[in-house]
Amino acid sequence: MEVSNTKQQHQSASISLTKPVRCIVKLGGAAITCKNELETINEENLKTVSSQLRQSMTTGLNSGEVLGMDWSKQPGESEISSTLSDFEDQPVVDSSPFIVVHGAGSFGHFQASKSGVHKGGLYQPLVKAGFVATRISVTKLNLEIVRALAREGIPSIGMSPFSCGWSTRERNIASADLSAVAKAIESGLVPVLHGDAVLDDLLDCTILSGDAIISHLAAHLKPEYVVFLTDVLGVYDRPPSDPNAVLLREIAVAKDGSWSIEKPTFQNKNKQVETSVAAHDTTGGMLTKISEAAAIAKLGIDVYIVKAATSHAFKAFSGELKGNLPEDWLGTAIRFSNK
Amino acid sequence: MEVSNTKQQHQSASISLTKPVRCIVKLGGAAITCKNELETINEENLKTVSSQLRQSMTTGLNSGEVLGMDWSKQPGESEISSTLSDFEDQPVVDSSPFIVVHGAGSFGHFQASKSGVHKGGLYQPLVKAGFVATRISVTKLNLEIVRALAREGIPSIGMSPFSCGWSTRERNIASADLSAVAKAIESGLVPVLHGDAVLDDLLDCTILSGDAIISHLAAHLKPEYVVFLTDVLGVYDRPPSDPNAVLLREIAVAKDGSWSIEKPTFQNKNKQVETSVAAHDTTGGMLTKISEAAAIAKLGIDVYIVKAATSHAFKAFSGELKGNLPEDWLGTAIRFSNK
Repeated sequence: MEVSNTKQQHQSASISLTKPVRCIVKLGGAAITCKNELETINEENLKTVSSQLRQSMTTGLNSGEVLGMDWSKQPGESEISSTLSDFEDQPVVDSSPFIVVHGAGSFGHFQASKSGVHKGGLYQPLVKAGFVATRISVTKLNLEIVRALAREGIPSIGMSPFSCGWSTRERNIASADLSAVAKAIESGLVPVLHGDAVLDDLLDCTILSGDAIISHLAAHLKPEYVVFLTDVLGVYDRPPSDPNAVLLREIAVAKDGSWSIEKPTFQNKNKQVETSVAAHDTTGGMLTKISEAAAIAKLGIDVYIVKAATSHAFKAFSGELKGNLPEDWLGTAIRFSNK
Repeated sequence: MEVSNTKQQHQSASISLTKPVRCIVKLGGAAITCKNELETINEENLKTVSSQLRQSMTTGLNSGEVLGMDWSKQPGESEISSTLSDFEDQPVVDSSPFIVVHGAGSFGHFQASKSGVHKGGLYQPLVKAGFVATRISVTKLNLEIVRALAREGIPSIGMSPFSCGWSTRERNIASADLSAVAKAIESGLVPVLHGDAVLDDLLDCTILSGDAIISHLAAHLKPEYVVFLTDVLGVYDRPPSDPNAVLLREIAVAKDGSWSIEKPTFQNKNKQVETSVAAHDTTGGMLTKISEAAAIAKLGIDVYIVKAATSHAFKAFSGELKGNLPEDWLGTAIRFSNK
């Protein structure tokens, strides 16, 4: 299958860091929020994801004790419970650079769709109010995610694309200076970005998706691998709710960006899958998802799409999936192939 | 009295906007938080300040009906109460550009002081954790202020200096690109910045104060006037708790940056006030406050220091204080004088 990479990369030079980025993690909205409950976080998933991330970042260096970095009051509390003295005995832990990007899930969606922020027209009172309301909702989620990560001992730092000065032109990234993100990484911090309402050169304003941010970061910061956390095991050949749905376990991407399913092997390999994936696409955007992942894999960066808060996700974070995939690993690996 | 302006302005060119900034407002930490209650907002003051700001921004254009722009859940609510249909009948309101900067008050202070973030050394576990914790606390406050402003119909947009890529060098602003702030203003939005933990070229990290941000914004965006909201009526010649304290009502700043008290008139004008202000300075930093305000006034920008949520503050926001100050106005005006 041919996929054309229609995204223009306006700043093609990659940024060189003292220590290269190991992993960019996308916390999908469906994985960390309760999709049908307005502005509600999936606390259990988020806690597990945060804990797995910390363990992956500091493999082998971790004393086991978690020293939380969220020293703010929790709802209903009047005091801060912190154990600051414990930090003094801590060795300096040199963890590997990660970047976190999250979607919106049940945050922001209501505000953006009611006002049509993605369509632009910021001068209209409803769109302007919706722009403000959307940013409030997604930054509220960002703060909660930063806090959850910090409670697990990750030095997380919220960085909103809007505040970073990022903007689009007809919904494609037009300006997205990565120097602030790079400086944060060089300082040993973990930037936490998110899908955001941004200004658009032609439309006035629009929504910049978490996936578009990931593509941009991957192209310029060249991480070893990218992990997409979702609420199903990976990418299927048709909607996962269909009892006949088959998990696509390995997708190989060629130099020209074309991709093919390596595992499982289908009888009529190309034709059959193409049809079923395309059929799925009309409802779930699965073809788009594979195409975007393939564009990243084409750069030599492994992409894993896995279910959040599972052992499969932990394996993906930890970088254990290089080479042959373990038989018991469940997920979708999309990787460059020289064959 | 001579005051030397020790702040280096690294980017001396001012940014030209289609519509110049009318007012930069500093919401002092003491005015909008309860100083002795950890992470507690002074809700009443914040609501009044927000309402006064909206009225000042849209003088003469306002229909009276406030259409809130915070469409997020309030604590304890499960639904969003919004009246989106009302926006459709709204005329496009062309309000004048304002920028809001807030201090930290009872947010951030505990986290920063316990860990010594202002002293630098981000590689140390305690400082790194404190950096993360401080940013969580101040961004939590920022979100609450943005929401309070939005509820009063102000198109407020949180912009953290850290995310904007601002950094310092030995605590003085080294890099603080204003293009994202300028773009937000040009789009009719109201940027809401705040004192923040930032990276420092020499110290690794430090705290950038709201006052330093105001000085930088004023120097480059040249607003008509700057208003500092505080919890007392203005600047006094000694601690306001002293029963003999006298409110300094008018301070004139000369071309060379020197300043003198115009009102009230003291018997032994220079000597007496100098002593009492200096004495106050050891505890309250009042001389520093006047010096910083004088540096802004020297640029031809009027500075008003007023008590938050009073009619005096409203007069200052509204730009009613040009020329002679009304007899019944209580506050401190620090203005350039050609005399």
